[in-house]
Formats: sequence, structure tokens, C-alpha cells
Amino acid sequence: MRTFDLITGESLFVKDLRVVRWEQYELGGQMPFQAMWYSVPPGSESPIDQHPELELSIVVAGTAHVLVGGAEHEITHGNAFLLSSTEAHVVQNRSDDELLTVFSAYWMPVTGERPVEAVTADHA
Amino acid sequence: MRTFDLITGESLFVKDLRVVRWEQYELGGQMPFQAMWYSVPPGSESPIDQHPELELSIVVAGTAHVLVGGAEHEITHGNAFLLSSTEAHVVQNRSDDELLTVFSAYWMPVTGERPVEAVTADHA
Repeated sequence: MRTFDLITGESLFVKDLRVVRWEQYELGGQMPFQAMWYSVPPGSESPIDQHPELELSIVVAGTAHVLVGGAEHEITHGNAFLLSSTEAHVVQNRSDDELLTVFSAYWMPVTGERPVEAVTADHA
Repeated sequence: MRTFDLITGESLFVKDLRVVRWEQYELGGQMPFQAMWYSVPPGSESPIDQHPELELSIVVAGTAHVLVGGAEHEITHGNAFLLSSTEAHVVQNRSDDELLTVFSAYWMPVTGERPVEAVTADHA
């Protein structure tokens, strides 16, 4: 069994968000997704972000307010949210004193759903 | 964006563990893994389990003591552990009063790592 520690993980900062990327654990092809933790200080928020990867996020501590598509969602401790490739998003921590920590898994959308004609040799 | 709520999720009980399986959200092929939350009451533990799927677990609340291969690991709130196909495991909650809640993602190991001779037509 391998264990992964949020506090001792090597981190980088994006604005004032602490990000612990799982590439450092060199899990290679073992996981069908990439992963990170990130922590948003009280009163702060993530930069706006949009990416081709789908992203599943679990709120590990605190409460997230997620702004996406003109709507806002409150995701409390323990709950989860899934973002698609088309959704630009900002994650806010509106608490005065509690850190918001999120675990995110992300992966490229399945390409097996292309139209059949794209993969059929129709000039045979 | 879709959101997923641990408290209102449809659950089943395995012994006294509350299990919320993500099949109910009908995410189909969107995620390259399956997922669940499970909660272990104070003083209780999971049945011993072993399965071909690799399993990544995030401790969402409480502290897990994981028994595997004759060793024991303490995984505190926010941290994670990864179990392989060969590891039978028991997850204990030794707290007197705090619920242990874990989010687990699980998937079949990548089969592309079979030995070359297994996939080579060597009788051609």
C-alpha cells in the first residue's frame, strides 16, 4: 500500500493557493487520471480556469463556492462536483477563518465516442 | 456542472458501514473509474476485502487505520492511500466519537502491461 500526505507533499503556489500535484508520486500508468490537492485560503479564490480535461473535485475541508456558467454552487465538506471541458470555473473560499481544501482527479474525455465514419476505412 | 451530495445520496449498508455508490449518478463512460463514499462508525471496521480493482481512497473525515499485509497504517483527515489488486485490507475507525468517511475511486489495472510474448503472434 502507498500513502500520500497532503502536508508533506511537495507543493507550488498559484496565486495564494497551495497546490500539491500527484505527478511527484510517479504512479505512471497505474491511475487512469491525474490528481492534485489544492488549498484556498480564507477570503481567496482560484484564478478562472478552463481545460479540456474533465475534473472531479471532492471538498476535503471547508466549503467551496464554485462559479460556473453564470451560476454559483455551494459545495460543503465531504461533497463533490464534476466539471466538463466547456465549463470555465472559479473556486472561492468565503470563510473568514477556515482553509478550503479540495482533492481533484482529472482526465481527458473518452475519445471512443467519435462518429463511426471517423474511424471507418470507407475508401477500401 | 454536476454536484454530488454525500448525505442525500442513496445508500446501502455493509455491516454498519454506510456506502454511497456512484453508479446511481449514471455518469456512464464519463469517468475512467468507479467511485463510492463509505462511512465507518466509531469503534467499527470494514469487512476484510480484496478485489482486482486498484483503489485510491481519500480520508474525507476522521482517521483511518488500514490493516494490510501484516502492517498497519494511520491515515489522517485529508490524506490518501492506494491499494493494489493483491492487498487484502481492513479499514478501522478507532475513534470514540468521530465518524470516519472515505471517498474511494477504483478501476481495473491497465492490461497493456502484459508481457510482450502474451500478445505476439510467435507462430507466424
